Amino acid sequence: MKIVRPTLLLDEKRCRANIRRMVEKARRNHVSLRPHFKTHQSQEIGRWFREEGVTACTVSSVQMAAYFEADGWKDITVAFPLNPLEVDEINRMAGSIKLNLAIVSADGLRQMLPGLKQKVSCFIEIDTGYGRSGVPANDTSTIDELLSVISASPLLNFQGFLTHAGQSYSCRSGPEIIKVHQQTTALMKKLAAKYRPTNPDLVVSVGDTPTCSAASDFNEVQEIRPGNFVFYDLMQRGIGSCTNENIAIALACPVVAVYPSRNEVIIHGGGVHLSKDFLRQDDGSLMFGQAVRLTENGWSLPTGMILKSLSQEHGVLKVSPEDMATIQPGMVLGILPVHSCMTADVMGEYFTLSGQRISMMTKPGFTKAS
Amino acid sequence: MKIVRPTLLLDEKRCRANIRRMVEKARRNHVSLRPHFKTHQSQEIGRWFREEGVTACTVSSVQMAAYFEADGWKDITVAFPLNPLEVDEINRMAGSIKLNLAIVSADGLRQMLPGLKQKVSCFIEIDTGYGRSGVPANDTSTIDELLSVISASPLLNFQGFLTHAGQSYSCRSGPEIIKVHQQTTALMKKLAAKYRPTNPDLVVSVGDTPTCSAASDFNEVQEIRPGNFVFYDLMQRGIGSCTNENIAIALACPVVAVYPSRNEVIIHGGGVHLSKDFLRQDDGSLMFGQAVRLTENGWSLPTGMILKSLSQEHGVLKVSPEDMATIQPGMVLGILPVHSCMTADVMGEYFTLSGQRISMMTKPGFTKAS
Repeated sequence: MKIVRPTLLLDEKRCRANIRRMVEKARRNHVSLRPHFKTHQSQEIGRWFREEGVTACTVSSVQMAAYFEADGWKDITVAFPLNPLEVDEINRMAGSIKLNLAIVSADGLRQMLPGLKQKVSCFIEIDTGYGRSGVPANDTSTIDELLSVISASPLLNFQGFLTHAGQSYSCRSGPEIIKVHQQTTALMKKLAAKYRPTNPDLVVSVGDTPTCSAASDFNEVQEIRPGNFVFYDLMQRGIGSCTNENIAIALACPVVAVYPSRNEVIIHGGGVHLSKDFLRQDDGSLMFGQAVRLTENGWSLPTGMILKSLSQEHGVLKVSPEDMATIQPGMVLGILPVHSCMTADVMGEYFTLSGQRISMMTKPGFTKAS
Repeated sequence: MKIVRPTLLLDEKRCRANIRRMVEKARRNHVSLRPHFKTHQSQEIGRWFREEGVTACTVSSVQMAAYFEADGWKDITVAFPLNPLEVDEINRMAGSIKLNLAIVSADGLRQMLPGLKQKVSCFIEIDTGYGRSGVPANDTSTIDELLSVISASPLLNFQGFLTHAGQSYSCRSGPEIIKVHQQTTALMKKLAAKYRPTNPDLVVSVGDTPTCSAASDFNEVQEIRPGNFVFYDLMQRGIGSCTNENIAIALACPVVAVYPSRNEVIIHGGGVHLSKDFLRQDDGSLMFGQAVRLTENGWSLPTGMILKSLSQEHGVLKVSPEDMATIQPGMVLGILPVHSCMTADVMGEYFTLSGQRISMMTKPGFTKAS
């Protein structure tokens, strides 16, 4: 493959190994794996999961559910607070697949009900400490209110409790992640104990890549929903969820200018290719990506070349004099992304190392088609 | 127009007024306006410029040049350092339009030459203090080297000096912007004085929205290339380039959850809709956008509701108790973006206030078509 412009490379072998590892872990622990597809947003990569026996998935929007429904997925959870304005599309899908919604608000649910025409399953989203969305785990009066609205409607079926322990993203080691995992599952276990007597089939669903990568004990959890593990990235490496060898995507970027006097290299690779997510390094400086050398079979281990800033299309790499001596305009370097979900979203397509194009859900394109 | 999911609204009237104001300013100052189209990335919005008499434009990639060439633009500057790997596409376009390249490196230029088959114009990019790309303004030996490579090739035509005073983005008032503008133009004027005797048609081209918005004196400048002014945004408002009434895009976001106990509202509107660019407020907190109320004819002045954090699809608004009392799931709020270029890029389409869809260059889509 001849690379002439920023191109998102996907190491299919690493990606399939990441998928297989999580599938096997779920099997070993007798939990269902309902992977989050918001990271890859690709029907083709979804099929790689299917080849490993996965039959249910998670998405972050109703639109994304429709995209995967169109490729034959029959059991999809929208792990984003119900938006009652989307009832028409919910009706359309729920007529042909098992559609599971995340409920956080009785108001939102009541607003949807007059328009609802099909049976849907409801997870109540629980906030186990992340503080973003969901009912606080100790707020059983709101949970009871939601359960009474759900049980009063013949179209709503209570499925269980769902949480996203996003606080695991501030961890910096395996033991720290395990601590978050234990706190989260303890809260979910307590809820399950309270509500299982009246809801024997209640499912406890947890999901975030750090805890699902690091934990080896999922007692009282019936389902896990990690997503980022399909590619991993520098953020996950920093958290302690993966190694360099697990990272399955890299952005190929042409070098366009070298500035030896300031030890900087300019690449074609900016915010519209990588997104603007960054990590703060130990010395306080920002990192928007880390360079690798492209090889015949993929890419090298990370180099010391750090992407220190991004504009719309420019990336500025900080480079040692030794590395600088090896770099000139016309070369192509790889950049490991800080946050692979966001990088994939802005790039909109992948190329495998053998040059095969892997398509993604394109937002406006999909709007047009639907 | 019924809005059910994150939708990028474009106030066409404000946008056309922004265009007209800059066209008139350029005319008044006898400088050519070559607007940067990387902000809107839309053939349709490009035509609004054409209706005001604009016939030349600036883009940030060879791919984007091809997108606007396809809509009849015949004079396009790629204001990004030449990437010699793109010589095939450069040849294709330069055969039918006036294509102007930005040169920063003799190495890069020499690498392209063996493959070059068509005449192209060359701007030498000058670094007037931003410190990103370009030849430092005082490095006349590199400029001389570039000029000798250019003049040795019958296919290269020296056009002039181009700079982007990106340092204007750290300004916080009109007078500060004017100071950057004066420093930049003084450096460019000095260069022009040195090289005009041997290059009488030399063009001095400057371009960034803050200086082009604030300045009223463009002496010794022949061309301006602002881009962001077509929409403006919260960053430009903070710099002092525009008022709230000039901001021409807002992201419509459904409210999905309210948390009165912590004064927070969750909207469907995250990093995949707004990008992750942020501003730091006076109290040190981050702002990823500011809410407006949607009205019949557009949107209100900014409210005190501030977008304090973003994940992939969630946005968290900090809201006063008074505002909180007026907000419930199922409502749609508008969000003024921090950085309109990045928001437009991730959204990939606009809708005018009357519901007309305005298309954009979609990266993978365009790759397929070309």
